Amino acid sequence: MKKVVTLGEIMLRLSTPGYERFVQSDSFDVVYGGGEANVAVSLSNYGYDAHFVSKLPKHEIGQAAINHLRRFGVNTDYIVRGGDRVGIYYLETGASMRPSKVIYDRANSSIAEADVSDFDFDEIFKDAVWFHFSGITPALSDKAAVLTEEALKAAKKHGVTVSVDLNYRKNLWTPEKAQKIMTNLMQYVDVCIGNEEDAHLCLGFKPGETDVTSGELELTGYESIFKQMKEKFGFQYVISSLRESYSASDNGWSACAYDGNEFYHSRKYDVRIVDRVGGGDSFASGVIYGLLEGKNFKDALEFGVAASALKHTIPGDFNMMSVSEVENLLKGDASGRVQR
Amino acid sequence: MKKVVTLGEIMLRLSTPGYERFVQSDSFDVVYGGGEANVAVSLSNYGYDAHFVSKLPKHEIGQAAINHLRRFGVNTDYIVRGGDRVGIYYLETGASMRPSKVIYDRANSSIAEADVSDFDFDEIFKDAVWFHFSGITPALSDKAAVLTEEALKAAKKHGVTVSVDLNYRKNLWTPEKAQKIMTNLMQYVDVCIGNEEDAHLCLGFKPGETDVTSGELELTGYESIFKQMKEKFGFQYVISSLRESYSASDNGWSACAYDGNEFYHSRKYDVRIVDRVGGGDSFASGVIYGLLEGKNFKDALEFGVAASALKHTIPGDFNMMSVSEVENLLKGDASGRVQR
Amino acid sequence: MKKVVTLGEIMLRLSTPGYERFVQSDSFDVVYGGGEANVAVSLSNYGYDAHFVSKLPKHEIGQAAINHLRRFGVNTDYIVRGGDRVGIYYLETGASMRPSKVIYDRANSSIAEADVSDFDFDEIFKDAVWFHFSGITPALSDKAAVLTEEALKAAKKHGVTVSVDLNYRKNLWTPEKAQKIMTNLMQYVDVCIGNEEDAHLCLGFKPGETDVTSGELELTGYESIFKQMKEKFGFQYVISSLRESYSASDNGWSACAYDGNEFYHSRKYDVRIVDRVGGGDSFASGVIYGLLEGKNFKDALEFGVAASALKHTIPGDFNMMSVSEVENLLKGDASGRVQR
Amino acid sequence: MKKVVTLGEIMLRLSTPGYERFVQSDSFDVVYGGGEANVAVSLSNYGYDAHFVSKLPKHEIGQAAINHLRRFGVNTDYIVRGGDRVGIYYLETGASMRPSKVIYDRANSSIAEADVSDFDFDEIFKDAVWFHFSGITPALSDKAAVLTEEALKAAKKHGVTVSVDLNYRKNLWTPEKAQKIMTNLMQYVDVCIGNEEDAHLCLGFKPGETDVTSGELELTGYESIFKQMKEKFGFQYVISSLRESYSASDNGWSACAYDGNEFYHSRKYDVRIVDRVGGGDSFASGVIYGLLEGKNFKDALEFGVAASALKHTIPGDFNMMSVSEVENLLKGDASGRVQR
Amino acid sequence: MKKVVTLGEIMLRLSTPGYERFVQSDSFDVVYGGGEANVAVSLSNYGYDAHFVSKLPKHEIGQAAINHLRRFGVNTDYIVRGGDRVGIYYLETGASMRPSKVIYDRANSSIAEADVSDFDFDEIFKDAVWFHFSGITPALSDKAAVLTEEALKAAKKHGVTVSVDLNYRKNLWTPEKAQKIMTNLMQYVDVCIGNEEDAHLCLGFKPGETDVTSGELELTGYESIFKQMKEKFGFQYVISSLRESYSASDNGWSACAYDGNEFYHSRKYDVRIVDRVGGGDSFASGVIYGLLEGKNFKDALEFGVAASALKHTIPGDFNMMSVSEVENLLKGDASGRVQR
Amino acid sequence: MKKVVTLGEIMLRLSTPGYERFVQSDSFDVVYGGGEANVAVSLSNYGYDAHFVSKLPKHEIGQAAINHLRRFGVNTDYIVRGGDRVGIYYLETGASMRPSKVIYDRANSSIAEADVSDFDFDEIFKDAVWFHFSGITPALSDKAAVLTEEALKAAKKHGVTVSVDLNYRKNLWTPEKAQKIMTNLMQYVDVCIGNEEDAHLCLGFKPGETDVTSGELELTGYESIFKQMKEKFGFQYVISSLRESYSASDNGWSACAYDGNEFYHSRKYDVRIVDRVGGGDSFASGVIYGLLEGKNFKDALEFGVAASALKHTIPGDFNMMSVSEVENLLKGDASGRVQR
Repeated sequence: MKKVVTLGEIMLRLSTPGYERFVQSDSFDVVYGGGEANVAVSLSNYGYDAHFVSKLPKHEIGQAAINHLRRFGVNTDYIVRGGDRVGIYYLETGASMRPSKVIYDRANSSIAEADVSDFDFDEIFKDAVWFHFSGITPALSDKAAVLTEEALKAAKKHGVTVSVDLNYRKNLWTPEKAQKIMTNLMQYVDVCIGNEEDAHLCLGFKPGETDVTSGELELTGYESIFKQMKEKFGFQYVISSLRESYSASDNGWSACAYDGNEFYHSRKYDVRIVDRVGGGDSFASGVIYGLLEGKNFKDALEFGVAASALKHTIPGDFNMMSVSEVENLLKGDASGRVQR
Repeated sequence: MKKVVTLGEIMLRLSTPGYERFVQSDSFDVVYGGGEANVAVSLSNYGYDAHFVSKLPKHEIGQAAINHLRRFGVNTDYIVRGGDRVGIYYLETGASMRPSKVIYDRANSSIAEADVSDFDFDEIFKDAVWFHFSGITPALSDKAAVLTEEALKAAKKHGVTVSVDLNYRKNLWTPEKAQKIMTNLMQYVDVCIGNEEDAHLCLGFKPGETDVTSGELELTGYESIFKQMKEKFGFQYVISSLRESYSASDNGWSACAYDGNEFYHSRKYDVRIVDRVGGGDSFASGVIYGLLEGKNFKDALEFGVAASALKHTIPGDFNMMSVSEVENLLKGDASGRVQR
Repeated sequence: MKKVVTLGEIMLRLSTPGYERFVQSDSFDVVYGGGEANVAVSLSNYGYDAHFVSKLPKHEIGQAAINHLRRFGVNTDYIVRGGDRVGIYYLETGASMRPSKVIYDRANSSIAEADVSDFDFDEIFKDAVWFHFSGITPALSDKAAVLTEEALKAAKKHGVTVSVDLNYRKNLWTPEKAQKIMTNLMQYVDVCIGNEEDAHLCLGFKPGETDVTSGELELTGYESIFKQMKEKFGFQYVISSLRESYSASDNGWSACAYDGNEFYHSRKYDVRIVDRVGGGDSFASGVIYGLLEGKNFKDALEFGVAASALKHTIPGDFNMMSVSEVENLLKGDASGRVQR
Repeated sequence: MKKVVTLGEIMLRLSTPGYERFVQSDSFDVVYGGGEANVAVSLSNYGYDAHFVSKLPKHEIGQAAINHLRRFGVNTDYIVRGGDRVGIYYLETGASMRPSKVIYDRANSSIAEADVSDFDFDEIFKDAVWFHFSGITPALSDKAAVLTEEALKAAKKHGVTVSVDLNYRKNLWTPEKAQKIMTNLMQYVDVCIGNEEDAHLCLGFKPGETDVTSGELELTGYESIFKQMKEKFGFQYVISSLRESYSASDNGWSACAYDGNEFYHSRKYDVRIVDRVGGGDSFASGVIYGLLEGKNFKDALEFGVAASALKHTIPGDFNMMSVSEVENLLKGDASGRVQR
Repeated sequence: MKKVVTLGEIMLRLSTPGYERFVQSDSFDVVYGGGEANVAVSLSNYGYDAHFVSKLPKHEIGQAAINHLRRFGVNTDYIVRGGDRVGIYYLETGASMRPSKVIYDRANSSIAEADVSDFDFDEIFKDAVWFHFSGITPALSDKAAVLTEEALKAAKKHGVTVSVDLNYRKNLWTPEKAQKIMTNLMQYVDVCIGNEEDAHLCLGFKPGETDVTSGELELTGYESIFKQMKEKFGFQYVISSLRESYSASDNGWSACAYDGNEFYHSRKYDVRIVDRVGGGDSFASGVIYGLLEGKNFKDALEFGVAASALKHTIPGDFNMMSVSEVENLLKGDASGRVQR
Repeated sequence: MKKVVTLGEIMLRLSTPGYERFVQSDSFDVVYGGGEANVAVSLSNYGYDAHFVSKLPKHEIGQAAINHLRRFGVNTDYIVRGGDRVGIYYLETGASMRPSKVIYDRANSSIAEADVSDFDFDEIFKDAVWFHFSGITPALSDKAAVLTEEALKAAKKHGVTVSVDLNYRKNLWTPEKAQKIMTNLMQYVDVCIGNEEDAHLCLGFKPGETDVTSGELELTGYESIFKQMKEKFGFQYVISSLRESYSASDNGWSACAYDGNEFYHSRKYDVRIVDRVGGGDSFASGVIYGLLEGKNFKDALEFGVAASALKHTIPGDFNMMSVSEVENLLKGDASGRVQR
């Protein structure tokens, strides 16, 4: 099994059942998730030896987060125990024109306050073939930004391919700070995933005309920005998922990518949404799978799009689709007929 | 905070979970609701000092109804305790071409048997600015009809603006009786809300050609009837929500209004339904909010339509949307993108 | 009440709540169902004295299956107690492009290992007017195939009308074995229900061009095969439901039939799916009702289609619609407006 | 199968989950039950052809009550459909020193307003061997009292043995009214079940010193009253269950009986309570089983006590114990060891 | 209605359902509670105008906490909105010899970081008759300690009676810091509630021999310490609840008090525990009720003990018993017989 | 981490919620468990590298069983995928004098039909220090008996200490067959765990007078049998847990052991039962922990008893207690006081 590594925060997710609003709910559904943890789970499902690197408190809520990862086969040996708290996010699932709401309560989590000395990155990246992180991890705290760069240096030292999901989070930092830190980190990155808005806010590229609330796509802007990104940072691939939000219940879902030669727009799926959280992470995971398996970038992109379209139908942050299930959709069967 | 008052019945609502039919269900979801109570909750959410006036038994089920209102900020000081029972309605939620079903068991409820002497309407309407009731309240019983008129007299005496939602209920009375009572009550009304069918059954106006099961609208009939209603009763505004029932799962939702000069048809929303009960009440509440805030009647109507479109996505009778959430939709963002 | 009889297996159905996948679920919803049991329940709902004939273990899980049938009025007096186990099927409900999954664990169930001597078919078919079975029952085991033929002989001896739902199940037998056994059993059948694929796999008719995953219908192939089937086996009616799988969430649903003179395609419904398991069984039941009530075959077909379209909105295997509810839809009201 | 008949009301029972209080609960567990219905279910479980006679509305809540009975094998052919409502009782389950609470909302139920002409008692009691009713049925309304006497006359005409459970309900009538009606009905009764308080309130016997809240028994009072009852009404047996309420969680449970010769006090069980509602009904059913099977009155009493001790461990009104399970306890195994 | 005021933190409580451990649970039951909030709810249930003073974030989780209080009638007008987070505690309910576990995640909550300037204590204590706080509030942060003293000064200025529940929390501060701050605050206190351990850790009194894990009481130590406390601080009453932990499922529960003249030990209840969190708060509330109603200190103590014994049977932090329910237990009826 | 190995079957456990009976339940709680799997989970919790060896089908129910083990840290690398089905057991939880019921449906499971060639026992036992199996595994089938002996041979070859839990299962084999197979396997065993009944049925030792349903212990019989067992098979330790079944809700729980010199009876715990399934497995695991850690046999026994007493308070088959939690009880704190 190929060894792959992700680094980041896993949070306790507290979501209201069904379509209940926060103010009416008397119970929360509990899962644990977060961008890089979600990627680790997908990659474990695809058959890799997926390691999630993080820090969690010694108490039972920290343990429960670990158990949640182990359930789906993720190797948690590199998770350090200590610190004060598990980050939390509250989720209220929207419907129709009512948007989903996320409230973060993640300040001072164990990973946000972790030291570089907590981790032995030489050990972690030994024999690894891929490292994935997102723009959320360095945004957690100044210490986390240092930690991320140390991990990246070690990854490069061990010849590990690196992918990033830019994932700008306005609650965690300002564009100015994001650009200062992220621009520096891009030197370690081989595969860059992020939409126009992320490219603008994290890396300072001038945004196109795309209005993310209009539900319409403007692909020409993407091609232009991707070329600039490739030129500036020398990425092997620049990639973005493309979401058309018709409503909280129905989205169009596709992706585009640029490999230095060609700009490619994938097949588009119209998805009836069960749970869209983690959609982007499952997309990244699918693309990583495709590239790790040596597919050409178009096929890798199509795998990523199909995998993440399917994620939208699964409750929780994690994508629980196997390779063969994704391939079945890629072969064209989107009929949803019962499989007996 | 402006003081607003509604008068009516709050019932125990017993609904099957998910899409279960009555005959297969082994538990009921429990909320408490009713037209005027629902309006009071919406107005409380919009920041008013909303009072709900009713009568409930002294036992714990009566108390639970009060607690349900208090949870959402409604002032329950004017709810009298006594009488025998809390009215009940059973709800089975439909899907696709299977309609939702409501079974009423509300006869002999405390409010249906309440006396005028139970209430001190002078105290109730002191400092109030708005009074809302529906055609359901006088239909509950002969005593309730008397009670309603006494409330209306007191409201007028205190210079309170009055709105009515005609809401014809065929299980409670005949068109003949409805027209006899409702026609008399219209003298106290400033703002009249009701669709063509209500105008016909409650007030005796000749119906147009609209077939409520066809899913198509016939707006010209509305304009004609609204003019007649205005002329006959001197309403300030005549207003109706407009539902196009494509199926139990998907509806078109808009509204129209007439202010004596102009007939206006609002923006239409296509809603994926979570719970459509209370949709009309949330519409009335939104319009009342708009008018109380001094918006012009078109803006008040649009606020009402947007608010009630959102209601269709919330489980239970109550609309739990804030002013800013409604305004977000009014500004055009119906994309349902996650709000972080 | 007319006495109707069905013979087959009732299984324990274990389904994940909501849209959970098997690997994430910590509870299962429990119902009991199976093709012929589902037909018996529908016919009981339509007012017949419906008997379900089967064999179940003496333990409480067997008893629970019986109780589940009794709850819906099915007469369980002909269910023999004994044998080792209740067959099981696991169900994961899909959404959008993710298909539902069924995992069977039904080998060695009591009915699969039942003897002809367990049943007194003379008693069972005394005074009966209709007998329904499906291609699943003879597929369960060699003994079950013998049992089915014995039942059919007795039914014919008592002048009972016989219908079959071909229902090919690839987990239970090969096309070769199916054709050998089913071709022989067709001599007892008056009304044959089955789609092109069933006709091909169970009876060996050359398939048409219909691609069941494409979501498009090819009706001409149906007409041709139906004529061949009628000719070869002398069926009174040949009938098929027609499913267009747009996705796991939305299907088109209609049916076609041939009476020897005319080929008829029914009205088509677009259904938002709550639970599609048992859809075919509710279709068969509706057609049987129509024919038993003396409707012409087109009206019987329309009743079957409407009834089974409604089934798709009900959780569980069983169709819990009354005759009047189906008729309401047949009259054209698919608006799903609340019925108070 | 011996035919046994009970007559009474079946109510919708709405209970809070776990130990929640009414004011904090957002769902109710739903079962349907009532004294005589509970007896019918127990007798069905013991293998009799148990008929429950009542009247229920035509709507689906009425149907759900019927389905609930059918699930446990009760014959519902004699249940008339019509009238306005299903009676309701709300249940909050206590613990330790907090008592359970029951709130009744049963006025104007279909059976309370049923006519004698709704029922064909000659048909009902044809071939029956036992008729059981309780003091609740005649207390429902004046019409119900007449109905009860008509049933009793018919039962006697058909030579049916009659048992009564006195069951005084202070919410339904006064002692004066109860004594007037019940004293008259006693002429039809063979087996009389009721505790000292019932004997006092329903039949006017002077109470002993037993303080039902003290948790201590005073058996000498029972013997004296039983003798008086036997003398006055000529009962074959006078019987009472004996509850010692240590707390809402733990009770002592036994019974005593008098056959004209001997006064007998049964074995006592200390029960950890899961659900005590229906405990008395399961006791009556067990005694009826014992007498119907020809056991001597002591053995019948012991069967009734063991059966009803077990009932206290089962959620809902119904006792779901088989004869063999009760006999296992009678043989002395109260160890609760796992049965594999 | 008398106006009473409490000041403190209300937290989100996340508890596993049933007896599940943290590591196995996939949902949490949600209530909101905290020492002083729990007291406010009890006092509202007893008919007072109970105000809870705190600070909560503007987001919906903050709102949900407010709604939870409003549901039970607490006046939330003095709750300031702002700050970053709602404090959290995780609860795992123990059984038998397995202890319940509480994990706190309350650092940096809005109230812990609130300023004195957030509150208008003159307004808050206007017309108030009682103020209650606990040792938890000043322990939250240095700012909270200042806030508490400002509140106490204002209370005294307005002639309000003050009670404290010492409630030492080892996670929040050291004994040294606690003693420094609490000793100073005692000058404002009239009624002091706290056990021997609290008196030792918060106020520096030398502990007696009581071993809180032994399940045995040593009352002489209490009398001695109470006298010293009275002497040093001039309290009107010194009071403590007394818990004997036989196991996580069963406790003995009583209390003792000293009024300067007499040391009194209350009746003791053996309680089967449903939820023991909030037991101490319900005890304090009951004593406050008794004193506010002018009972002598022994009767007030007995009311407090009975009320809090009942609390142990109710899920959640809040005590939902009415005065009459408590009085029923005080009258001696601990039999738990069903109340109909 | 020390490597420990267990071999056996993991089943799908379907249990009714709360105290519901099978015939009334509409959902099942789902966990996966089985004697040796339960031991593996406990040993993983105690910090060992615990491997569970078995065979499971390739489908998702098989995967879910694996995920359930992984969640609790068990290494599942040696679980072979293939075969037809996951064994099932149905569980109904009893209360008071109503016993729990288990219905097995485990015939033809993948592990029962596994071949020796499916496993590489040399690899499996490489570097292992302990191997545990139970009498259930060889009872599954003749092939499973062969498999067990092959595993034992390999274990011995690798110098691994071997423990057995005799665990006679009457549904799987006769005493004759059990004795034939088990007597042979004892040559490989170092530590033998089993009660008098197991010793009798599995190994043919003459039973003592102990009546397992009486709730009373007869320890002298144990000492005598243990000495015979030691003598005949040369076990290092002979051990038994001792259950006194007062009722399904309350048990006494202790253990005894013999080391060739001394017979020792442990401390006894009175346990209020939440879930007693897996109690014996948690006892075995605790003893294994104690012996692996080099404790003397009395301390190891006490650890096992305390650990398994705690298991009775945890829902599901698995014991989720840490070493420190068990030690806390061993230190004498059984008070169940809240740990904050």
